[in-house]
Amino acid sequence: MTDSKISDAQLRELLCTLLTLFYAKDWVSGTGGGICARRGDGMLLVAPTGVHKELVRPEDLFALDPKTCAVVEPPKNPALAPSECSSIFAAICQERGAGSVVHSHSLSSVLAADLTDGHDTLTIGGLEMLKGIRDTPNTAQHAVPVIGNTARESDLTATVTAVARDARYANSHAILVRDHGAYIWGSDIWEAKRHAEVYHFLFQAMVQRRRTKG
Amino acid sequence: MTDSKISDAQLRELLCTLLTLFYAKDWVSGTGGGICARRGDGMLLVAPTGVHKELVRPEDLFALDPKTCAVVEPPKNPALAPSECSSIFAAICQERGAGSVVHSHSLSSVLAADLTDGHDTLTIGGLEMLKGIRDTPNTAQHAVPVIGNTARESDLTATVTAVARDARYANSHAILVRDHGAYIWGSDIWEAKRHAEVYHFLFQAMVQRRRTKG
Amino acid sequence: MTDSKISDAQLRELLCTLLTLFYAKDWVSGTGGGICARRGDGMLLVAPTGVHKELVRPEDLFALDPKTCAVVEPPKNPALAPSECSSIFAAICQERGAGSVVHSHSLSSVLAADLTDGHDTLTIGGLEMLKGIRDTPNTAQHAVPVIGNTARESDLTATVTAVARDARYANSHAILVRDHGAYIWGSDIWEAKRHAEVYHFLFQAMVQRRRTKG
Amino acid sequence: MTDSKISDAQLRELLCTLLTLFYAKDWVSGTGGGICARRGDGMLLVAPTGVHKELVRPEDLFALDPKTCAVVEPPKNPALAPSECSSIFAAICQERGAGSVVHSHSLSSVLAADLTDGHDTLTIGGLEMLKGIRDTPNTAQHAVPVIGNTARESDLTATVTAVARDARYANSHAILVRDHGAYIWGSDIWEAKRHAEVYHFLFQAMVQRRRTKG
Repeated sequence: MTDSKISDAQLRELLCTLLTLFYAKDWVSGTGGGICARRGDGMLLVAPTGVHKELVRPEDLFALDPKTCAVVEPPKNPALAPSECSSIFAAICQERGAGSVVHSHSLSSVLAADLTDGHDTLTIGGLEMLKGIRDTPNTAQHAVPVIGNTARESDLTATVTAVARDARYANSHAILVRDHGAYIWGSDIWEAKRHAEVYHFLFQAMVQRRRTKG
Repeated sequence: MTDSKISDAQLRELLCTLLTLFYAKDWVSGTGGGICARRGDGMLLVAPTGVHKELVRPEDLFALDPKTCAVVEPPKNPALAPSECSSIFAAICQERGAGSVVHSHSLSSVLAADLTDGHDTLTIGGLEMLKGIRDTPNTAQHAVPVIGNTARESDLTATVTAVARDARYANSHAILVRDHGAYIWGSDIWEAKRHAEVYHFLFQAMVQRRRTKG
Repeated sequence: MTDSKISDAQLRELLCTLLTLFYAKDWVSGTGGGICARRGDGMLLVAPTGVHKELVRPEDLFALDPKTCAVVEPPKNPALAPSECSSIFAAICQERGAGSVVHSHSLSSVLAADLTDGHDTLTIGGLEMLKGIRDTPNTAQHAVPVIGNTARESDLTATVTAVARDARYANSHAILVRDHGAYIWGSDIWEAKRHAEVYHFLFQAMVQRRRTKG
Repeated sequence: MTDSKISDAQLRELLCTLLTLFYAKDWVSGTGGGICARRGDGMLLVAPTGVHKELVRPEDLFALDPKTCAVVEPPKNPALAPSECSSIFAAICQERGAGSVVHSHSLSSVLAADLTDGHDTLTIGGLEMLKGIRDTPNTAQHAVPVIGNTARESDLTATVTAVARDARYANSHAILVRDHGAYIWGSDIWEAKRHAEVYHFLFQAMVQRRRTKG
């Protein structure tokens, strides 16, 4: 479940490349959002908090122990602190065996959560793109959990853990956070990238279809 | 009908450049969609399945016999398998003499198919951009077939073949697949690119006009 | 009124750079649309017809006499023919003293023309961006002519000439062509670029406001 | 409050890089909009007026005294004049201790101001992205002032100064100008960039939610 085939240096480079790509997609603007990935030794590489994500460099990343969230390798720059969503990243890795987690601040994820009108599930169906999610047929009625936002990002961890364990969402690789964004994961960084693109397409499709079909 | 003037190496390079371009347009996100083209010897170059299309390299492409879909030249990487839509690509080349076929997973093609409310034809009229389709005047009422989606992409082949032969759609260079996307082709890779851009404009225009004009 | 300060080579390079930029903005997709500019000797540089506009190279451009539309310098490639809208470009240069004309196939120009419900004028007001049009205050009620499309692009020339002379549109640097796009010009290539950006903003604003305000 | 750690040359380079980025986001198209920043000596670097903002070079910038708006270092090119919004930039620096101010001509800021139906405040709530604004919780009902546009940009200065001093807007780092755009600032250039991205997200979210939720 970890990116055991690529080196620490390659993974750091790749994470920064993806942050730049995600910035271009408006998923991580305004220093929000991010991505983490597990390297060969199981440690989690995460970006610093409060920085312009598209400008993060490989040497700015923290290595954390996903079991404890303790920093095992800090960047040289002492002004940096690890991303506030590290405990959520770690929870998803632990609960779902994820090797990489994307945290998106996209408008489409906010608008998709709005579609549920306060209910705790967004059900997505009738779209070929569902096949882009691991083990999911395009005939699925795919249930994505929608959780409420909290004042502090770290306070989301308990709810994220609960829905990650909830049997209703066993097939989901995403959690929508109302008014906030989404967490989307995969077994490795490439699957996390694919799932992030697939879920964003699905979110946009649901929002656009609501406008067309009412 | 084949790209006889450009070498195998040039065509491979060009296919990869176009995949990167199409990714930037959100036509092939989440590893979906793709493009094929016939080279001088008539063999069809296709991308592997399940890979991030914008990252495909020239040496990753398969060469297939469009009559049988048999692989005549695999890439060196044994982990790769040819695109699932190869049989559809081959059917369109055979039925319509296409030299290149684009498979788009764009949201605009899904929303354009929605406009037909279950009917089997999207009729496009009143747009200058129709002239971008081979032998089509801007006064045309241009009929594009809309087919239902199937659980497996290869199961679309029979329906694709049927509409490719249907006289009602003799002028169309596109097939919409409901909830899924579109196949768009041309006599060579450059015409396929032009047609892909033209049809996507037309799909977007139809969707936007429906919202404005009701 | 001509770009007398830049050389033929520089102007060719700049035209190609702008075509690539306009392609990225979806103004010249599917080989449609284009741009021309007058060089120091008054001759008009225009792109070839039917080519992917973002891929035009400096040596592909034609030099035409704007008084007669006669080709004074063809490109070396004998397969190329000058843009079909050359006679319109020439008419606008003659009637309005334009040094450069952009022909846009943008969706926003089509949707903006739709807003007039068949009338021959789109009146734009209440937007600071109007100041981006030469000699136009932001308090203007700015009248842009809307003409009907024709089967052949060259058949638009007479109507374009008529509205270019129409006193109601003396302040306009744009002509909308229903179902088709827009012609937008300036005294030199830089003003044409500015006007193109300004009018596209105005078209989008009009379309979006109609949706919000009803 | 000034960018004391980066040199004049670095700050000039960075301002030009951000203008190119903002152009790509459609915030400064048609030569409109811009950005300023204070350098180590407290002088304000501003772009020239009437130029294509994405093409501004470091040597084109003016250095102004923010107390008087007097030019202390002009660019070598005598054809250039400082941005018309310099007095507004200076007022925001003086009133709010800003180290950098972005002036956006984005459509989303125009549409967001429209949402207020003539009232003088846009209240933004229920969005995590609010945390991207200095000292702002995601539970805030964040009040952004909306002022009327004027015929001349410099005539906005008095109103900008008044709302910058208005206690109702003490937490806002943005001022919306109806039919025009927005001024958005931060204590340094990086905070101004973050705030600009955050406010544009919030403006878009408000506009999109109005359409979805009515």
